[in-house]
Amino acid sequence: MTGRPLLPVYRTPILDEWIDFNGHLRDAYYGLVLSYATDAMMDHLGLDAAYRERTRCTLYTLEVHIHYLHEVKRSDELEVRTTILDSDRKRIHVACGFGCPRVAGPVAAAEAMLLHVHQGEKPSSAPFPAEIAERIALYRHGAPELVHGLPGSRKIELTRR
Amino acid sequence: MTGRPLLPVYRTPILDEWIDFNGHLRDAYYGLVLSYATDAMMDHLGLDAAYRERTRCTLYTLEVHIHYLHEVKRSDELEVRTTILDSDRKRIHVACGFGCPRVAGPVAAAEAMLLHVHQGEKPSSAPFPAEIAERIALYRHGAPELVHGLPGSRKIELTRR
Repeated sequence: MTGRPLLPVYRTPILDEWIDFNGHLRDAYYGLVLSYATDAMMDHLGLDAAYRERTRCTLYTLEVHIHYLHEVKRSDELEVRTTILDSDRKRIHVACGFGCPRVAGPVAAAEAMLLHVHQGEKPSSAPFPAEIAERIALYRHGAPELVHGLPGSRKIELTRR
Repeated sequence: MTGRPLLPVYRTPILDEWIDFNGHLRDAYYGLVLSYATDAMMDHLGLDAAYRERTRCTLYTLEVHIHYLHEVKRSDELEVRTTILDSDRKRIHVACGFGCPRVAGPVAAAEAMLLHVHQGEKPSSAPFPAEIAERIALYRHGAPELVHGLPGSRKIELTRR
């Protein structure tokens, strides 16, 4: 542990329309929960609706990698713990562990790369203002102690067994 | 090109509720379109509702990696071209290129690893039946000529520039 504060845990119930023909949470809706958890992180970092309106700046997603580790059912609730692994002037690299109270261990793990963008006539990347950069640094844990045991992003390939 | 047949292109309009506060297609809904395109591929390979009911077998998603390359707007239509890159007795590795007629070049690229699962008391991986394995092999293009120019799955990390 780095001794730095943690981002709030994002919690959501599972909606009926998120269940697919397999009788479990459709793969894409883990991504929607990740997206909502990222919105909550933006609010917490000060990249909220007022900031976005005032500056015309926001975050765009560049990449997402999700590992599906356990089925999630209609009756479950998801808890998403987000850690800022790294950041630079314009980008934030986050890792998320998905849990649900019924299941021991994570049900999914995700990483995402997010870019700070000014939405002008043509959207273009923009540095974080100093106060936002400080806030990001406060929650940046570097080496991912918090996500220890979660599979990280990697090249997807079949390994012959 | 391998001379093998191509999977049908999956097309979908963009729905109002898929647009986020950035005024573009929310990141997670590229994943939903990918998920629906995978459903269409399942139907085409014979892993359709009748198969699933008869055998209690289906596909589970193990991993997904999406690269976001271009904004998609409410007025756009998405076209997803799926290629089977590789497969083994139980798994299919697919790559998808997302296009829309307004934009030159791909708007997103994705890879996914899918596992054939028997949904019994406890879900467990199961080999494809011979006729499905043959069908998969028919569409397996190996070296990804079709996805040339698309970014592939990789470790997500900040590179210092």
